[in-house]
Parts: sequence; structure tokens; C-alpha cells
Amino acid sequence: MAPQLEPFFQKVDDLSGSFIDRLRKAVAIPSISAQDENRPDVFKMGQFLASELEALGAEVEQRPLGKQPGKEHLDLPPVILARYGNDKNKRTILVYGHYDVQPALKEDGWATEPFDLTVDAQGRMFGRGSTDDKGPVLGWLNVIEAHKKAGVEFPVNLLCCFEGMEEYGSEGLEDLIQAEGKKFFKDADAVCISDNYWLGTEKPCLTYGLRGCNYYSISISGPAQDLHSGVFGGSAHEPMTDLVNVLSKLVDVQGNIMIPGLMDLVAPVTEEEKSLYGDISYSMENLHESLGSETSIHPTKERTLMARWRYPSLSIHGVEGAYSAPGAKTVIPAKVIGKFSIRTVPNMESEQVSKLVFDYIKAEFAKLNSKNTMNVWLQHDGKWWVSSPKHWNFTAASKAVTQVFGVEPDMTREGGSIPVTLSFEQATGKNVLLLPMGSSTDAAHSVNEKLDKRNYIEGTKLLGAYLHYVSEEPINA
Amino acid sequence: MAPQLEPFFQKVDDLSGSFIDRLRKAVAIPSISAQDENRPDVFKMGQFLASELEALGAEVEQRPLGKQPGKEHLDLPPVILARYGNDKNKRTILVYGHYDVQPALKEDGWATEPFDLTVDAQGRMFGRGSTDDKGPVLGWLNVIEAHKKAGVEFPVNLLCCFEGMEEYGSEGLEDLIQAEGKKFFKDADAVCISDNYWLGTEKPCLTYGLRGCNYYSISISGPAQDLHSGVFGGSAHEPMTDLVNVLSKLVDVQGNIMIPGLMDLVAPVTEEEKSLYGDISYSMENLHESLGSETSIHPTKERTLMARWRYPSLSIHGVEGAYSAPGAKTVIPAKVIGKFSIRTVPNMESEQVSKLVFDYIKAEFAKLNSKNTMNVWLQHDGKWWVSSPKHWNFTAASKAVTQVFGVEPDMTREGGSIPVTLSFEQATGKNVLLLPMGSSTDAAHSVNEKLDKRNYIEGTKLLGAYLHYVSEEPINA
Repeated sequence: MAPQLEPFFQKVDDLSGSFIDRLRKAVAIPSISAQDENRPDVFKMGQFLASELEALGAEVEQRPLGKQPGKEHLDLPPVILARYGNDKNKRTILVYGHYDVQPALKEDGWATEPFDLTVDAQGRMFGRGSTDDKGPVLGWLNVIEAHKKAGVEFPVNLLCCFEGMEEYGSEGLEDLIQAEGKKFFKDADAVCISDNYWLGTEKPCLTYGLRGCNYYSISISGPAQDLHSGVFGGSAHEPMTDLVNVLSKLVDVQGNIMIPGLMDLVAPVTEEEKSLYGDISYSMENLHESLGSETSIHPTKERTLMARWRYPSLSIHGVEGAYSAPGAKTVIPAKVIGKFSIRTVPNMESEQVSKLVFDYIKAEFAKLNSKNTMNVWLQHDGKWWVSSPKHWNFTAASKAVTQVFGVEPDMTREGGSIPVTLSFEQATGKNVLLLPMGSSTDAAHSVNEKLDKRNYIEGTKLLGAYLHYVSEEPINA
Repeated sequence: MAPQLEPFFQKVDDLSGSFIDRLRKAVAIPSISAQDENRPDVFKMGQFLASELEALGAEVEQRPLGKQPGKEHLDLPPVILARYGNDKNKRTILVYGHYDVQPALKEDGWATEPFDLTVDAQGRMFGRGSTDDKGPVLGWLNVIEAHKKAGVEFPVNLLCCFEGMEEYGSEGLEDLIQAEGKKFFKDADAVCISDNYWLGTEKPCLTYGLRGCNYYSISISGPAQDLHSGVFGGSAHEPMTDLVNVLSKLVDVQGNIMIPGLMDLVAPVTEEEKSLYGDISYSMENLHESLGSETSIHPTKERTLMARWRYPSLSIHGVEGAYSAPGAKTVIPAKVIGKFSIRTVPNMESEQVSKLVFDYIKAEFAKLNSKNTMNVWLQHDGKWWVSSPKHWNFTAASKAVTQVFGVEPDMTREGGSIPVTLSFEQATGKNVLLLPMGSSTDAAHSVNEKLDKRNYIEGTKLLGAYLHYVSEEPINA
């Protein structure tokens, strides 16, 4: 056991009641970034964090980000930048989190008031933002407080970057990260983000990869206006007919992407990589439980996780411009836009992917011999991210998990994207670790969001232990 | 020239100013059946018609239809049932029209106030309801007035059935028609409906056929709730992938329905029928003008009109449950419902069509090997209608057209449906003629709806002349 951890752990247990109170106060502030009327609450939550950090002895700045683009009557909430400790002999660790939350109304189906933290007999703490991401953010504050009150020397210099617009596209954050890469963040030796989830409910994980996402639109247009299908059906080319034809050529029902050359861009699986999957605590039952159905494609856990984490996938999201309401309408839509996206993985470069997509769709449309007009374009892209799970930032975190939970963490990736991860990596040039606090059943973004008391209190211990291990982990590890 | 027509024609010309005034008064009443707040205006319009008919000497009844289903706070507007003349030695002609209109707001893009009839230098009379269907309905009233004022004996007994809910699905009408088939309508020798349009702008037409419509939904469902495409893309069967596959198998880009056996149900084209198409006043330029594009499927007028009128067509209308808004959302929809309809023609029976559709779609879905669940069902159907253009009701109308316009009418069908046509045929057992007043450029249901003064005034002459010819047309013709 690393020195100093026992008194720190003991103090976290002693303070657990006040740590839950801190979370209760934070949950009570409905800091919903997507709703204009709650903007003052987002500011209030930023002030709450700033005050708590100052009370703990951190230097805090509430960095304004200006007006909200497209909603200029609203000020963007500030990024809370904080520094705790400034000792040249210690490593500096940059941590990120967000203090805004998703909307929530009791009427949506919550069993309890969403902004009133409610702890049940099993220690489940229900409340909007409990797990996403107020619990993890407060975890860092709890770590500072427990060290102070236990009289344990803080092992690192801590830099905090807490934003208030994450649930609304992190407006303004990217520019700040890039601008501060060589300024406020310049001392950072490594980065740690706690804003994702364990793969299951029992075993912690460290996350070393994320898929990227290229989002495409295909528009097909013909007549100048929507047509009556009685009057024109059979005599004019229908854009919707063309579109379902093109969309049906993108991916097969078993999930195989049918765009020639695309799979050639995917990095081959190494034996070493393969060996990581067998031990991961996950089962087909876990998948079926989260799907709410048994409509899985692959027969095994390993193939399922690889399909989710390290292979690309293509999903068709919908059609804009066609009839989408309940009931029946006999319209021939004049212009329809199909939307699909490709989740990307190493070594798929966005430009290469787009070229293959565009060439293929143009060729398939040409084969149709339609007189309609087709366009295809990239709506947005975000790059995949993969880090080395052998970096000292990860090995330190792994030791911390083993220390606190008595088990080695699963090394996982995620199928989705967390764009800020890549931003921090690019701006600082340092390794980024994703160290989740919550579990797979926490229902972030959904009704009855919760954080288990165990995940919060042991998770606070984990964040503290991580700082100790990362302060002394050999760079060559 | 049939006796009595010259003085009638002269009187119509003399009264044209007051006939336009009558239309102006009717257009000024915003009898929009789809908008709750306009329901009193629909009643006002019914009262206007009843008063005018009574002033002309007709026996009038405003038949109540009870509460509006699903909107029980609203009374359905009455059906105006009127009888003009009761001479056992004359034929009795039943005419139908509707006095409600589509919604209209100046802000929608009207050049003039939609409920203020505005006549421009070219004699175009702009106003909501001018052509659909207040002009034709008032045409019958004008015919009575001109006969009275010219001192010309009215050639037939006239039965009127004018409804006030046509633009909202003719709520309550079907029951009334079937109930009155052997009561109020029992004397009818033939039926005439003026609620459609010329194929072009110069040449009148008589319409003897309508396509039917079978409307289908295909639902495909998999997971219990919408999924994040990052987390689940590649590991679960996606309902939208299955749906675009199935939809792509229904119809090809050239409009050929791919459901095996369906085309075998279509009545073969006879040589006599073929001969009707060559003379019809229509061109590919007309089609391209109404499409606003040159995205026609067929190279000739004849094939275009046959594709529209006497062959079935299949249109895909849209998808319910998928992402349909502008922008980008990375959702995997849990349940999607594809909507399509088949325009039907003789001799396609609805049950036969549905059996072929269901069998084919089930077989195609089975081929996909998806674990998702598929259902397909008929949302609604309406039968096609074809009458004989050689019936005396038609030959009489043809002579009237030749008399008034100096040209033989085109014998046309329509690609869409007018369900009331079949209802009157079934309830009365008599021939139904569609005798349009307005032209193809009248923009019914759209902004700047209009009726040309020529179509209204010469159209009034046509309705009167038709009554004279139909009163004496030999039954064997």
C-alpha cells in the first residue's frame, strides 16, 4: 500500500455524510444548459463549484465564454478553471468534468423529484446529474477536503477544468482548450476525465479508446413541390423511391458495411489486443438487458465488444422531408434527405472515408437511371481516439483500482465519442485517461438517473488513490 | 341546337355580374371545415346556400349530422338537401358539391386577401373556394335563376346534396348517402358531380374513372427503446436498416411495382380504350409544367396518361419513428413504420391486393434473417371507380360541351380518388358523371386559388345545357 492512503481512506469514510450533502446541494441546482430559462441556474452551479473550491484553498477563475452563438441574448456559463497546489517538485494532473445537466421533469416518469437527491435502502442516490457529471466533479473536491482534514500531503498539483455547456455541445470549450494548452494547462503532465461509465455494475474499468463519427446526408430531389400520389403516381420519378434504394445499399442486416474499400482502412487486430477481450466482465445477457430485446447480431461477448469498440458501424438515422407523422398521407415528397453515420476506428481518416462514401453513393445512384438529382455531403465528423493502456497514467490508475476495489480494472473502449478527450490530448500533447466513477445502470440522460453511494464514496477514494499512484509512477511503465 | 338554350344562354350573360357577386358573397364566408374556430362560418355558409335556394323556389332541408366524432364539442355542419321541381314527367338529376373550403392565410403567400374575391384583368377570380367548390355549387343556383328570369322551363327535377365537411374527410356523409339512397335520392335517374378539373386550360373534359387507393404500413421493431448509435452500432439489428431493405423491394425507379402477381390483376387495355388517348389535349410539356421539373418516367403523353389513370402505381410516403428533423442526431430508432400506398385500378380487388402485398413483404423480410419483428397491415382502402363514357348521362354531357364550347370534350380519368362518387353510385344504383367546371391551373388547396370568369360563366351555361340534353337523351345511347 502506498503511504498516506489509509488515513485518507478513513477520512473519506468519516466525511461520507457531508460528501453526500455536497452532492445533494449540487443536484438541487437545476443547471440545465439546453433550456434558456435555466441559464441562471447554470451560472449558480458554476458559482457553487467556485465557492467550494476557494473554500478548500484552490485558486479559482470563472472564465467567461461570451454570448451563446445563435442565442445572443444568453451568456454562456463560465468555465471554472482552478489550481490546487503549485509545487515544482510534484506532477501536475489536469482533470475535466462538467457541471451542467440534461433536462428532467418528474412527469417524464421519475419515481422521485429529479432535483431532490433521494437515497434508497440499497444506497442508490437518485437525482439529475448525480452520475453525469456532478458526482465525479465533486469527487475531486472531496479528495482535496479529505486530504486536508486527514492532514495528508496532497500528492500532485491539481488543475481543474469544469464546463457548464457539455450537454449542449460544449459551446465555446474547444477554443478555450486550444488557447490554454500552452497557458493554464501548460504544466499538466497527464489528463484524467471522469465522465463515462463502467461496462457493468461490479467491476471498474479504465477507458483507452473511443470511436469517431462521420455523419452524412443524401438529398434526392425531383419535382418543384410535393405531389399528390393519385395524380402523379406512376408518371414521375419519386425521390423517396430512389432514396430507399440508395440507403439499402449501405449496410446489410448483419451490420456489414457494403461500401467497397472501407473495411480496408481498419487497422488489423493484433494478438495482444485480442487477448484483452476475454477477461472483460461482460456477457450477452448484459447486452440483451440494455437492448431490452435479444436482437443482437453476434453470438459472443468478444465479437460484440469488438463490433462496438474497434470496428466501424453504419446506422441509418432517418429521413427528412418525407411524411413522418402518425396516420396516412398520400404525398409524394419533392425532396428527401436521408441521414446516416459511420462510427470510425483506427486507421480510418475522415477524408478517405468520405471519398469512398461519395464515390460509392454516386455510382449506386447512377445505376438507378433516375432523372432526379442526388447530392451527398458530410454533415460533421469527429475523429476516433485510442490511447495506450500501458502508459504510466493508466498503470497508475490500474493500481489505484486494485487498491480500492481489490480487482484489476477492465481495459475498455467506448463505441461513442467524447470529443473533449481528443481536444485535451491535442492541446496538451499529454496522455488522457478516462476514469469512470458511475456504473452501467446509472441511466445518465434518462429518467431516474442515479449514482450508487458505493460508486461515489469508493470512487472518491479511487480518484485520490489515483493521484497518489500517478504522482510516483515510473515514466517508463 | 336544343330548344330553349339561346334565351337561357343570353340570360346567363346578362346576369354574369350578379353571378360573380353571388360567388363574392360565398367566398367572403371563411367556411374552413378543418379549423374549429371557423365552424360557425361553415354553418353560415350552409345557411347562405339554403336561403339562396329557398329564394329561388327550391324546397330546402338542412340535415343535421350530429356531433363531430373525436371532437364532440363541435356540431357537424348540415348537409343541404334541396329539391327544385317535382314533375313526374321529367327526369330527376341529383347533383353533389361541397360548401366548405381549405384553410387560407394571406401570409401563406397569397397575392390578394384569400376571402375577398379579386378579379384581375385576365378575368381570373382569385379567392379561397372559388373553384373548389363554391363556383361549381353556385353554378347550379345560377342555372335555376337564369331559367326563371329567362322564362325558360326547367328541363328536369333537380336534387341537390351539398355538404360542409368535404375538406375534412366528409365526416358523416357516407351514412347519409346510404340512408337516403332509397329515400331523398330515390327519384334520381342520374348523378352529376362538379368537383374536379379539366386536364388542361382550354378543353373541357368528362371524367369516367378514378383510381382507388390501398394504404399500407410496415412496422419493424427491435430494441425496447431508441439506442445510441455509438454504443450499440454494429452489435444489434437496426430496424431502420431492415425497413429500407424491405421498402427498396416494392417498386423500381421506373415505377414498376415489384410485388409478384399484382400486375396480373390489372384489366387488359382494349383497343377501344387505347383509341381514347391519342386525341386527349395533353402534352409532356403540360406534365413538366405541373411537376416543375422534367423528371417524368414515360416518353409519351399516351403512356403518361395510362400510367396515371389506368395502371396501378406505388408510392413510398415516409417513415414514422425515425429521425426526421433537420440537423444531425445519432439515434438508432427502436421502432420505425414505413408508409406506402398502391393506387388501384380495375380489376384489382382490395383483398387480393393485400394478400399479395402481405405475402411478398413477409417473404422479403424473412430473407433478411433479422431478429427484429415485422408487421404489415392495411391502414385504409378505397375502391377504384370506372363508368362507361357511352352511358346517356355522358353522351348528354358531351353534347352540352360541344354546344357551349364548340369542341368535343376529352374523356378522362383521374389518378386520385373522389370517394363520394362510388358512394352515390352504390346508394342510387345510377350512373355518375364527373363534370368539371374549373381548369388545371386553378390551384385548388394551394395559395392563389382561382376560377376563371370564362369557366364560371360558360360553366354555368354548360351545367344548364347538360340538364337540357340529359332530359331528352335516349336511354339506349
